[in-house]
Amino acid sequence: MEYFKNKTLNKNIPIPLYYQLKEILLEYIKEHHKDEELPIPTEKELSEHFQISRPTVRQAINELVVEGYLYRKKAKGTFVSKPKIRQDFLLILDSFENEMKKKGLKPSTKLLNIEVTRSDEKVSKALNIPLGSEVVKLTRLRFANDEPIVLVVTYLPHDKCKGIMDKDLEKESMYDILEKDFGYNIARATRTLESIVAGEYEAKLLDIKKGAPIQYFESVAYLTDNTPIEYSLAKYRGDRNKFSFELKREGRF
Amino acid sequence: MEYFKNKTLNKNIPIPLYYQLKEILLEYIKEHHKDEELPIPTEKELSEHFQISRPTVRQAINELVVEGYLYRKKAKGTFVSKPKIRQDFLLILDSFENEMKKKGLKPSTKLLNIEVTRSDEKVSKALNIPLGSEVVKLTRLRFANDEPIVLVVTYLPHDKCKGIMDKDLEKESMYDILEKDFGYNIARATRTLESIVAGEYEAKLLDIKKGAPIQYFESVAYLTDNTPIEYSLAKYRGDRNKFSFELKREGRF
Repeated sequence: MEYFKNKTLNKNIPIPLYYQLKEILLEYIKEHHKDEELPIPTEKELSEHFQISRPTVRQAINELVVEGYLYRKKAKGTFVSKPKIRQDFLLILDSFENEMKKKGLKPSTKLLNIEVTRSDEKVSKALNIPLGSEVVKLTRLRFANDEPIVLVVTYLPHDKCKGIMDKDLEKESMYDILEKDFGYNIARATRTLESIVAGEYEAKLLDIKKGAPIQYFESVAYLTDNTPIEYSLAKYRGDRNKFSFELKREGRF
Repeated sequence: MEYFKNKTLNKNIPIPLYYQLKEILLEYIKEHHKDEELPIPTEKELSEHFQISRPTVRQAINELVVEGYLYRKKAKGTFVSKPKIRQDFLLILDSFENEMKKKGLKPSTKLLNIEVTRSDEKVSKALNIPLGSEVVKLTRLRFANDEPIVLVVTYLPHDKCKGIMDKDLEKESMYDILEKDFGYNIARATRTLESIVAGEYEAKLLDIKKGAPIQYFESVAYLTDNTPIEYSLAKYRGDRNKFSFELKREGRF
């Protein structure tokens, strides 16, 4: 309880007490979580220190459990979860393999499915090809240190990427294949980001609960001549990933 | 059902049928949703067309309802939700007011609380001030066309921003006050993004369900001399916002 000694709740402001406690716990979690997992004080200790009811304490803890910041161990108490993997690739387009290696994590990939199919409206629009064109559709589950991190569905124009069907996509990076083997120069990508929650299928594959938060990225990568070469839909576990970037004030640069 | 005429499910791949249908419906939603709200075919029509059971159809639709892409109206059917507001400010730091106006939306702000408080570890670190320094803490709920969009908690160093307590933050933009009234030059910001789910308090304020997805941004804005001037924690409704940006291939530029 040492950490909480000087912390108090303010009963005179229109912010619920449970939410004020949640903010304090979240700060504790963010300041103190290392790779080792740490217990938090008991409900009783928190309730006595902050002079609030047990249900109020429980509400704050419950929401932090649902959000993945804390987890409960039977008969052991409540613990701080491992910190999220900080991803910097919002601005730099790099392969998953390289991103994970730079962070000292071991990347691996499970190819769930690969097929040649016909482009629908959305895929045609993204890849700028006629409706019904042949596309390679890859479904991959990607891991960091053997923990599932992201489920990715990728569409490639078949005429430009025929050889991909013969490659081992669990061993080789797709970007390496496109660039080194096929000689393409990938220059840039556009990306859209949404927050969604896991359905049954994603929950099972990513080893999270149905309803848990997911970061959903839709990306289109372009060659130097602006031809779209890759369209990807990636679902990242919200409890294990955060993304950081830098932004500039408009009109000043 | 015209749209779905040429769509089929593939029973020979290891992707669940409900999930394949969900992908098709999502494409329909993304291609066809305008500001006007559109019905989707009935469970019966989808089940007959795709030759799958009603529970399989229902599972796909249920998940899209939970994710906010579809909504049900009693005795009327299932409809496509309004499209999300596309936010471009991931890379450009601009005020909420300007962002909304650029999109033709009417911004408004409700100031929930303003107080002078003491900085805790997290705030001290972000603003680079000693622990226990006086900070102004603002809690604001922000709207687009009278719909709540984001809940923002902002910390400002009190010694640099004393005059803010006398300003009308429901009428004036905070960035305008800092720049035009106080003469600060805000140059850049760092931002971290996480996906979380709404707790009871956020759900009530943002008019969403508990457990609905939220985009959570932590930002620190800096003056041209690198002094931190603002630390903000913003929770955006996941069902009404998406964020887009451009990224470059590393080493190529």
